[in-house]
This record gives sequence, structure tokens and C-alpha cells, in this order.
Amino acid sequence: MKKYNFGAGPSILPQEVFEQSAQACLDYNGIGLSLLEISHRSKEFEAILEETITLTKALLNIPTGYQVLFLQGGANMQFAMIPYNILNEEETANFVETDLWSTRAEEEARLYGKTKIIASSKDANFNYVPKDFIIDSDAAYLHLTSNNTIYGTAFFEDQSYPIPVVCDMSSDIFSRPVDVSKYHLIYAGAQKNLGCAGITMVILKKEWLGRSKRPKSKMWDYSIYAKNNSLYNTPPVFTIYTCLLTLRWLKKLGGVEEMKKRNKAKAALLYQEIDRNPLFRGHAAVEDRSRMNINFIANDPEHEAAFLEFVNSYNIHGLKGYRTVGGFRASCYNALPIESVEVLVKAMQDFENKSSK
Amino acid sequence: MKKYNFGAGPSILPQEVFEQSAQACLDYNGIGLSLLEISHRSKEFEAILEETITLTKALLNIPTGYQVLFLQGGANMQFAMIPYNILNEEETANFVETDLWSTRAEEEARLYGKTKIIASSKDANFNYVPKDFIIDSDAAYLHLTSNNTIYGTAFFEDQSYPIPVVCDMSSDIFSRPVDVSKYHLIYAGAQKNLGCAGITMVILKKEWLGRSKRPKSKMWDYSIYAKNNSLYNTPPVFTIYTCLLTLRWLKKLGGVEEMKKRNKAKAALLYQEIDRNPLFRGHAAVEDRSRMNINFIANDPEHEAAFLEFVNSYNIHGLKGYRTVGGFRASCYNALPIESVEVLVKAMQDFENKSSK
Repeated sequence: MKKYNFGAGPSILPQEVFEQSAQACLDYNGIGLSLLEISHRSKEFEAILEETITLTKALLNIPTGYQVLFLQGGANMQFAMIPYNILNEEETANFVETDLWSTRAEEEARLYGKTKIIASSKDANFNYVPKDFIIDSDAAYLHLTSNNTIYGTAFFEDQSYPIPVVCDMSSDIFSRPVDVSKYHLIYAGAQKNLGCAGITMVILKKEWLGRSKRPKSKMWDYSIYAKNNSLYNTPPVFTIYTCLLTLRWLKKLGGVEEMKKRNKAKAALLYQEIDRNPLFRGHAAVEDRSRMNINFIANDPEHEAAFLEFVNSYNIHGLKGYRTVGGFRASCYNALPIESVEVLVKAMQDFENKSSK
Repeated sequence: MKKYNFGAGPSILPQEVFEQSAQACLDYNGIGLSLLEISHRSKEFEAILEETITLTKALLNIPTGYQVLFLQGGANMQFAMIPYNILNEEETANFVETDLWSTRAEEEARLYGKTKIIASSKDANFNYVPKDFIIDSDAAYLHLTSNNTIYGTAFFEDQSYPIPVVCDMSSDIFSRPVDVSKYHLIYAGAQKNLGCAGITMVILKKEWLGRSKRPKSKMWDYSIYAKNNSLYNTPPVFTIYTCLLTLRWLKKLGGVEEMKKRNKAKAALLYQEIDRNPLFRGHAAVEDRSRMNINFIANDPEHEAAFLEFVNSYNIHGLKGYRTVGGFRASCYNALPIESVEVLVKAMQDFENKSSK
């Protein structure tokens, strides 16, 4: 029996991605070889990579002048690679601190230049995203996190800022249309909306290649990836294929506009129940509520463990909140069907009825 | 129809690894979730990682005082991470240059300290491995590549040297017993004998953690991986599982002693035919012949394309040699059955018969 997977990541992917990945492990496209044993220089993998990049550009409507790169090491690696590649030692980067990950990004940047946290919601346990912040006009870039996985908050608008913007979209990429032209660099670990764990996508304005002047190790240098179309060394073949399968599914369903519609519907349904149900309350400020990671808390602390136990019989998985927030986190990524949310809402209502007896 | 896969990497894995990986994509161990959607903090993945490390230690008979780490980015990433973590700026590392990869390792180390190539077989197109070299007794370490994928040469002995030894075992790890105590650091990209592409194993003497004094980015710091048991950030869950499956297979078959026996038998069979068949000759010096990557050349240059075409009808795949050597490369990694070598030998004999008509 399949579980309703609300895990925060690595997380649910479309069912057909699981099936097609399984088939590829046995025999890729009928070539008599498993995808796990083909060369990254084979025409089969070159076609996979090419189509993945093409689909990314089409689905996100990426303007010319940008390059799509695939790198290993996750968003954490990008916390270091971005300042290493972009920030010169005497320059400053501005950060808006909205969760643990933006904090990590700022800490890593300190090794390569100056940093300044220009706004933070830390004082309110990150339950909102700062909106009015003053940017240093001479800073090299502004770093944002568009969706905050732990605390369930999000920026929904791609705003114009007076300096280049770097954005960590690990947990909401492909969940809505993005105006890529507003960013110099977008990065995203795959393991939420894009594919299985082990690959990170970087969308980079080409004029930024070679921006920082420090001598660089090849594997930490965007220019090497750009020049070699992410094939300087052996990339994770299978992992990139799971991205391609997910993007094909996304395109078939109607792309990011359709995803936005579906994600809004799922989120509305769940937040409505959180607001209605007297046993629960949301964590994030209403106007900043994430559609990807929906955090809520039991009003009675004793209900926390009880509700987690209760949902087991509904085959609900991955609902436990992050330790710094507590409570529950229902991650509703693209691949999560609305039926899963309906089951969760039903479980919340049944729990309310049971508790009132 | 399955192909006989002689590809150099990513390369053949055991058939049961393909089958079990496929099953895990659909439903991991009957838990109602695909392996591609489970958290790296789940008890399922923690068990996978733990067993992978335990099996590695058992199969390679790793003494106490070593740590097994899993990192992303391939051996190329290690070319940078090793000097970054080990070599202080004023120190020198010694390199034995036996192929393109050792050259890359040396070039990357120049960014972090001093380097010296103490021996090279470049003058002979890397067709042998240097044996008598003079080591700088005050060098921080000696870097070796145990098996040279491109040129088909190998060091087979784990020798004692007066300084710590770092060894790239990407293409022969688990192919024979290794005396790990002779090394301070062993590293290996997975995609030959260990698993699918996207993970690198590092076996590190713990006393070397924190050796270089430069401030480090977290994702480039062995100490962070060691402290977090390779779980500082999201690792490639599926990829590590393919390693576990391969190691289980290896253990079941009798471990690295049995692999050495099988690999010697496969190599002997193929080299015998290369030496016998008047149409072909080997590239590597006889005493340094790799058991993993068996390179040979057509004596008549016109036979090169013809033989590659000829083997197609035998379902032989991946035999084309690297561009700097030409000819043919039959990679005979652990998972390649001797039957595949027998088919190749038959094809060589049939080609000889056909050509003599």
C-alpha cells in the first residue's frame, strides 16, 4: 500500500518517474544496457542532458544570456561556490536571513569576502519573511531564499532590486512561474521538485562567469562547468535522468502555471483546515505562508505525539516538523496529489472528533 | 539482448544490482515508498549507510584509526580536496605521474602548496609505471594512482614508503586485497567497481583530519564529513544504495580475494589472446599490465575501425580506446563475467580468420 508522503526532502516524485527510473535500471530504452552502466560520454546520456537543459529553459522561460549547470554537492556546496566564484575579497554580499539555510549561506560567504545580514526574522523564530530592507547599493549581490523549508514561509514575487540577486530556490523551483531575468543566479538542490538527491541545478547569468578573481580549483569553478556543459567530469547519470523524467511529467501536465494553480489549491485546502480546526494553528504569518512546506502546531502540546501516531493508520508519512519548530510539516511539493491533502484534512477532522469525545 | 559491456566507466555492475535497484525505485523493502522519495534522515537510509560503511571496512580489512567517508563530485573533486585539507602552503607533495588523472591531481595541488613530480612515464605515452623514484623525505605526502584507466597500467603492490601515501584507487578498488595500513588516504569514484556514478569513497587516517590549517568551506572539509558521518547535508541516497548492493554481492562471492582470482583469470585469458593474435598488440609494458583496463592496438591501423565494427555483431559494447591511446580498451571490472572475455577472445579469433582469407 502506497504511503501519502509529506516528507520535506528527499521527497515525493511523480509515480511515473519511479516506474520509468526502475525500467531504466533494468534496460535503458531497450539498448541492452542498464542506465547505471552507460558512459556519461555515450550518445544516450548526451541526449538526456541536452533534453534536461532544454526543458529547464523552456519550462522556466529562461531568457538568453543564462547558462543551466548541473553540479554535485547540494545547496550546501553552493553556499560556498557562490561567494568563491562571485565575491571578491574586498566586496560585500547582502543577506536576508529567513532560516537556517540562509544563515549557512552567509557564514560560508565570510570566508571569501564581507557579508552583511540586512534583514532577519530570527527574532520571531523565522515565522515571516522581511519585506522592507535597505540594500547596500555597492554590495556585489543580495542573497535570498525564496522558500523556507523549515519554517514554511516564502517570497512569492520576483522583485527588482538595485543590485544583482542570488536566490536559493531549492524547495520551490518549478512550483510556479519565475521571472528569471530578475536574478543573476538561481540554485536548487534537486531533491524536492526536480529529481532524486545528488544533483544541484544552477541557472547563471553568463556575464557573471569569471567574476571573482581568485585562482580556483576546477571542480569549484562555474566556468569549467559552463565550458564543458556540466561534463568536465563524470556527472551522476541516473540522478540527472530522474530530473529529466520529472520535467517531462511537468511539461505534460501544463508546466509551472498549472503547478502554481495546483499548489495554491492544495495549500488553500490545508491552511483552511488548520485555521478552522481548534486543535491546530499555523506557524507562519498568514501573508508569507509557503505552498510547499505547510507548518502547523498542536495547540495542546500533548496532542503533538498523539496526532503523529494517529495519522499512521491513514498511511500518512513524513509529517513530523523540524526540531526547531516542532509540530507538523506537510510538504506539498509538485508531485504530491491533492488527494493526499484531502486524506490529511480528513485525519485532522477525525482527530478533532475523537478528541472532543 | 544484454550487451557485453567493456565500458571504462560508468561501467558494468552485477546484474542483481540492476534488479534490486529497479525494485527499490518502485518500493524500497516493502515500506510503501520508493527509495527515491525517502529522507536521508530516515531509519531506512541510516541503515543503508551504516551497512555500506561496515561492509567496506570488513571487505578491505580496514584497521582501526581510519574513517570511511562518502562525498560527491568524483575523483576530480578529491584532486582539490586532498591538498586543500592536507597540504599546508609551505609544504610539498610528491606525485608519480602515470596518466591524465595524476596530472590533474598534481595541477590542483599547486593551488594549495608546492608540488613535485618525482617520476613520470609520460615520455612513453604512460605505457609503464615508474618503480624507482626518489621521494622527498620532507614532503607532506606521496600521491599515486594504483590503476591507470586510460593506459591500462597498474601498481599491484601496497608498498611501504618513508612518507604518508595518498592513492587514487578509482578504477581498481575492491578488485584485490589492499593493505590499507600502507596508506593515509585512499579515494575512489564509485562508478567502476563500487556503484553508479555520483559518489566517491574516501578512506582516511583519522590523524590526518584537520591537518592543513587553512580556513575551510564546510563542504570541502573532511572534518565536517567525519564529524557528521557523511550526513552533514543530503547525500545521494540511491547512489549509496547501489554501492551497498554491489558490496553485498562482493561479500557473497567471497570478497576481494575471490575478485583478485577472477580478475587475474579474466586478464590472463585476454592478454594471452592479445599476445598470440598476430593482428593485435598490447599497449602497456607486460609487467605493469592492468587487470581492470586491458588496452590493445591493431597492428594494421586499418583494422581499428574494422574490428570495432566487427564486434558489434557479438553484442560487445564499449571497446573503443581512449583518444590518446587509440585502439581498444577492454575494461574488465569486478562485475564483468569471464564469459564476456571469452566472447571477446572469440571475436578476435574470428576476426583473424576472416582477415587471413
